[in-house]
Amino acid sequence: MSSSLGKLFTITAFGESHGRCVGVVVDGCPAGLPLAAADIQPQLDRRRAGAGAASTSRREKDKVEILSGTLGGFTTGAPICLLIMNEDVDDSAYEAIRSKLRPGQADFTARVKYGDFNDWRGGGIFSGRMTAAFVMAGAVAAKILRTIDISVFAHTVAIGGIDARTLPYEETAKKALKDPLACADTVASTKMAALIEKVKKEGDSLGGIVEGVALNVPVGLGEPIFESLNGELAKALADIPAVKGVEFGAGFTAARLKGSENNDPFTIEKGKIVTTTNNAGGILGGISNGMPIVARVAVKPTASITLEQSTVDIEKMKDTKIKVGGRHDVCIVPRAVPVVAAMMSVTLCDFAMRAGLIPGVLK
Amino acid sequence: MSSSLGKLFTITAFGESHGRCVGVVVDGCPAGLPLAAADIQPQLDRRRAGAGAASTSRREKDKVEILSGTLGGFTTGAPICLLIMNEDVDDSAYEAIRSKLRPGQADFTARVKYGDFNDWRGGGIFSGRMTAAFVMAGAVAAKILRTIDISVFAHTVAIGGIDARTLPYEETAKKALKDPLACADTVASTKMAALIEKVKKEGDSLGGIVEGVALNVPVGLGEPIFESLNGELAKALADIPAVKGVEFGAGFTAARLKGSENNDPFTIEKGKIVTTTNNAGGILGGISNGMPIVARVAVKPTASITLEQSTVDIEKMKDTKIKVGGRHDVCIVPRAVPVVAAMMSVTLCDFAMRAGLIPGVLK
Amino acid sequence: MSSSLGKLFTITAFGESHGRCVGVVVDGCPAGLPLAAADIQPQLDRRRAGAGAASTSRREKDKVEILSGTLGGFTTGAPICLLIMNEDVDDSAYEAIRSKLRPGQADFTARVKYGDFNDWRGGGIFSGRMTAAFVMAGAVAAKILRTIDISVFAHTVAIGGIDARTLPYEETAKKALKDPLACADTVASTKMAALIEKVKKEGDSLGGIVEGVALNVPVGLGEPIFESLNGELAKALADIPAVKGVEFGAGFTAARLKGSENNDPFTIEKGKIVTTTNNAGGILGGISNGMPIVARVAVKPTASITLEQSTVDIEKMKDTKIKVGGRHDVCIVPRAVPVVAAMMSVTLCDFAMRAGLIPGVLK
Amino acid sequence: MSSSLGKLFTITAFGESHGRCVGVVVDGCPAGLPLAAADIQPQLDRRRAGAGAASTSRREKDKVEILSGTLGGFTTGAPICLLIMNEDVDDSAYEAIRSKLRPGQADFTARVKYGDFNDWRGGGIFSGRMTAAFVMAGAVAAKILRTIDISVFAHTVAIGGIDARTLPYEETAKKALKDPLACADTVASTKMAALIEKVKKEGDSLGGIVEGVALNVPVGLGEPIFESLNGELAKALADIPAVKGVEFGAGFTAARLKGSENNDPFTIEKGKIVTTTNNAGGILGGISNGMPIVARVAVKPTASITLEQSTVDIEKMKDTKIKVGGRHDVCIVPRAVPVVAAMMSVTLCDFAMRAGLIPGVLK
Repeated sequence: MSSSLGKLFTITAFGESHGRCVGVVVDGCPAGLPLAAADIQPQLDRRRAGAGAASTSRREKDKVEILSGTLGGFTTGAPICLLIMNEDVDDSAYEAIRSKLRPGQADFTARVKYGDFNDWRGGGIFSGRMTAAFVMAGAVAAKILRTIDISVFAHTVAIGGIDARTLPYEETAKKALKDPLACADTVASTKMAALIEKVKKEGDSLGGIVEGVALNVPVGLGEPIFESLNGELAKALADIPAVKGVEFGAGFTAARLKGSENNDPFTIEKGKIVTTTNNAGGILGGISNGMPIVARVAVKPTASITLEQSTVDIEKMKDTKIKVGGRHDVCIVPRAVPVVAAMMSVTLCDFAMRAGLIPGVLK
Repeated sequence: MSSSLGKLFTITAFGESHGRCVGVVVDGCPAGLPLAAADIQPQLDRRRAGAGAASTSRREKDKVEILSGTLGGFTTGAPICLLIMNEDVDDSAYEAIRSKLRPGQADFTARVKYGDFNDWRGGGIFSGRMTAAFVMAGAVAAKILRTIDISVFAHTVAIGGIDARTLPYEETAKKALKDPLACADTVASTKMAALIEKVKKEGDSLGGIVEGVALNVPVGLGEPIFESLNGELAKALADIPAVKGVEFGAGFTAARLKGSENNDPFTIEKGKIVTTTNNAGGILGGISNGMPIVARVAVKPTASITLEQSTVDIEKMKDTKIKVGGRHDVCIVPRAVPVVAAMMSVTLCDFAMRAGLIPGVLK
Repeated sequence: MSSSLGKLFTITAFGESHGRCVGVVVDGCPAGLPLAAADIQPQLDRRRAGAGAASTSRREKDKVEILSGTLGGFTTGAPICLLIMNEDVDDSAYEAIRSKLRPGQADFTARVKYGDFNDWRGGGIFSGRMTAAFVMAGAVAAKILRTIDISVFAHTVAIGGIDARTLPYEETAKKALKDPLACADTVASTKMAALIEKVKKEGDSLGGIVEGVALNVPVGLGEPIFESLNGELAKALADIPAVKGVEFGAGFTAARLKGSENNDPFTIEKGKIVTTTNNAGGILGGISNGMPIVARVAVKPTASITLEQSTVDIEKMKDTKIKVGGRHDVCIVPRAVPVVAAMMSVTLCDFAMRAGLIPGVLK
Repeated sequence: MSSSLGKLFTITAFGESHGRCVGVVVDGCPAGLPLAAADIQPQLDRRRAGAGAASTSRREKDKVEILSGTLGGFTTGAPICLLIMNEDVDDSAYEAIRSKLRPGQADFTARVKYGDFNDWRGGGIFSGRMTAAFVMAGAVAAKILRTIDISVFAHTVAIGGIDARTLPYEETAKKALKDPLACADTVASTKMAALIEKVKKEGDSLGGIVEGVALNVPVGLGEPIFESLNGELAKALADIPAVKGVEFGAGFTAARLKGSENNDPFTIEKGKIVTTTNNAGGILGGISNGMPIVARVAVKPTASITLEQSTVDIEKMKDTKIKVGGRHDVCIVPRAVPVVAAMMSVTLCDFAMRAGLIPGVLK
């Protein structure tokens, strides 16, 4: 297993859904960054199960503890270990169906890979709960990025086939922050909420699309060949559980365009070279071009549904049926929003360091 | 710049479009693999400019040389350096427009990142010609994978909005190999060829979608958290120039499905656990589940078009117009096909080694 | 800062001398290894301050907690987070001399690198206390190695110029385990103890040499060029605070020998190829040759001494004098012994995994 | 096999002693460095077999070719592939003794690791000839380091038990460059030469000690825990074939000193904090302290000697005798001198980049 990501800014996750805790070691943070639990908690809270219909009934406080790497409210340059303890743990629903493979989950692959020793409780390390580690690390990365004026946000652009309208980035960031589904288009959000309510009653689930946007990224982050900015972002985003696709700028739509439609013309604006459109999603030749970095990820519908499904009892090696109990989100898309922002922040922070933009000591 | 990819099976690319050569060092290959130029050349030939309308008029022999790592026709365990020399190099078209930023190309970002020292000749290291290095390395990886019965192929599934019909994998692999556009659906291929011809006359270009498929991958390749099989494949595929999106299995379509539609039910077939559908694209929880690994990439339309475009003269810092001459493909999708297969092979080979499936000495 | 070591078996350390804790994330451990605190505690206890004159008066229980990665007493394949809390913390001695650079310590370099944000309390992350993280990780590695019959031990071979006699390995391992200075030669150990007592009264300190030995390592671990077994061992051992030199087999003595004296002749013993001497220290061409792996490290005398020393007050930028208080070991050599064994175990475990000798699931 | 070294400045070696070539890909070099063959050739020439008695009779021109990464005499930022072709190759001496294991060589370990596929010709990738790759990469690194005024040199400090006198660094660097044995103490050098002559007649060989020194390294390179400057230097130096030990500053001598003798007192000199002695070898807490970085490596006597030795015929699995023919150095120490300087340069260059001291574009 490899639980580390990044080259100069490195994060190492650990923990399990129903074990003692979920944690992350953040390495490479410069000294002198003001850092307190209050910097991290709001992102964790956004990721936490909400009050809405979309969300699991599992209730965790998810209070972050800083175990190392700070002194007097500032980072010291040493690795920062961040931790949340697991509290509201209930294995009973999992115990009952332990030998039945939940379709769409890692039960089967984990069981083959780790044998009977796999932590089956709530998905173990395969649980979406592990993304709390991503979010904690992302909060540190985001704070570092803000020292060079880079800001990252994410929002819901589609749920269950309902697409949100495109709005200006500033408006999007603000409205998404307030919306229960993290969707800036309030009309679409209302429809999404109704659909979620309906699908919940059916015992089914929904997927959607999350868009991450990084503003004010300077020209020059990323490398040609094997450390392209898009390559590393694609990896970081695809590592989020339930993500089945990643695209940049026009993405899969670009495949249907002509060059004359897809190419972003250059022009000069206030003395700076910019493009008049952003089909490239802010990346040319693997390197940031100064335009907003725009990435979208496809989130599959929650695998755990109460509807009856066909599956296999792996101990009896027999076909069987399963109804997945436990506490699950009908749609995890809104909770994936801070995770997408976190992974973009972590990746961009690493690239900013490789480019020498972050000093070893902040002032 | 980072020009290496992989952990145990590592490839390091070097070279430029109009420099002396394009090469790759393949490290981690077991000893005892029969390896000759003839194992690599066919893949290079597929990547090379074809006779069709889609293709550039640049003509290179691209004869691979094995500089190290073999003795008596077998690999020795030492790093394998593979090289093709550049021959049909003509800088004149680039010289004329050197200070004008070609829209959709890396001219601007490379110039900011590397200053006046950037190798502007034919795109330098940003050129699609660098994918010859990927293909050479992929040919070695594919040979290693075949020792454990894994086979990888790729094919064109869409060009300029024309979609190919889905056929069984075996038929697809065979037909795509013979089709000039690497498309298994001959009816669609004919339409694509006509569209390419038309767009060529307009001085414009086309993009499309390539699908890569790996068959017979055992259950268990990949890791949870930060070395998921999808994460590493996403990175490797997104590192291919012109790729703007990557998806697995149902991909972005999954975002519109319900859980009951997207989940792949498990069943037992010939004593083995399989899924009856493959919306997961062969990956669950970041780990291969024994079903075909299916990845699709969005290839943007060729950035170089002869139609006039708006851009900036970076030396005069003035808006201007550009018509890109040189020798370019109207549609690079067919040439991207062996590249996609190569990158999947390289990544899977690395994971097979991490899983201990490839002995240090082959017999 | 980079706090991770290893490729397939990876350890990530965090914590500080006077912060909340010292911890380590151990990644890559196979599933199915029986693992409890009792497997780790004895090594920690050996590293802890002893009763002898050599040792600091700081008293910590150093009770290890397993935060993740096990279930029902077995590893699950997930990353294992191991933690000890800091208890007997007293910053006062450090506070008093905070602006005076302690000679031989990291005060100066840390202050330049991390500025005023450096954790000055007890050396922060530069403290020898961080080696508790190495020891915890080493205990896991050692348990994995024992599944393939590799055993690793270390012992004191010199303190303050007093050399221990060479004994057979088995006897050495046993006797060193019982000796208060971890020295198998009890006569030498008595002399060392007397010297330590004497030097303690002088307010001075002593260094020495620790030898690590790995038995039953199969032929073939390690790689030529840049992942030689000696290269990685040298790195891991040189990363131990206070280590100023590393040598293998005859080491620096080999520089004075002739080839005919230094070469280890091959012969056949019980059907196996062995060497009749072991000047190579078990490594030829960067690869283990089946003989015991023997490494020795030079440990400098403890930098913190109560004798007055010349130094600089970095805030006043003036020459000054310093007497270092706090609680320090007169000689850390005995406490370095389990650390050397730990680092050898961690490195060999990583190489055993790269060689495919450790299955993903233990039985 | 892993043939890459470094994090931001990465080198990947390939080739064999008697294959087509020896080469290296240097990745991470900033754009704008003036680089021609003439920058690299002198170091290669120093490593090449000399005219002296110490040296092999193999004669290679070792003319470096730059295959990629430069344009118009400047680096472009793209990976630089450097190559020398093998010319004076004679396999006959190796063929005759192919099944007999040469003591002190990698024959046995390579044969177990790579089986019959191992390149046995002249040691293949285990040959000292591979250090030509290190030297080529080191020449690039040294040029980069000179842009920030860091200079690195190495010299012979002992051969066969004859120690050179210590001289001031500047004098040492100059004199060593002119001395046939790369030893600054001409009296000692004369004695060494006589000893080499004598031992040559005996059919035996000699080892020795090489010291590498880096001047003007700023305070702050290196990291605590697992990326200490000494750790990475130890690894890079131990990766040099025939090196059996590495020490820094007082090294193994420090193990015999008291703290009051070994600690380097701080003082202020010309407004800068320095130490009055340098037992630390320029590294405190894993981080450079502004004093000269001093590392010494123990080079074992050449394994290939013409004296008869006991060994095993691995095909017959029988004890036998061997006299190693071929063309060998009686003492490789002088040829190891530029290799030590190269590996220190490569490592320091990587650390300078991690510290953000090298801009992406040089001016």
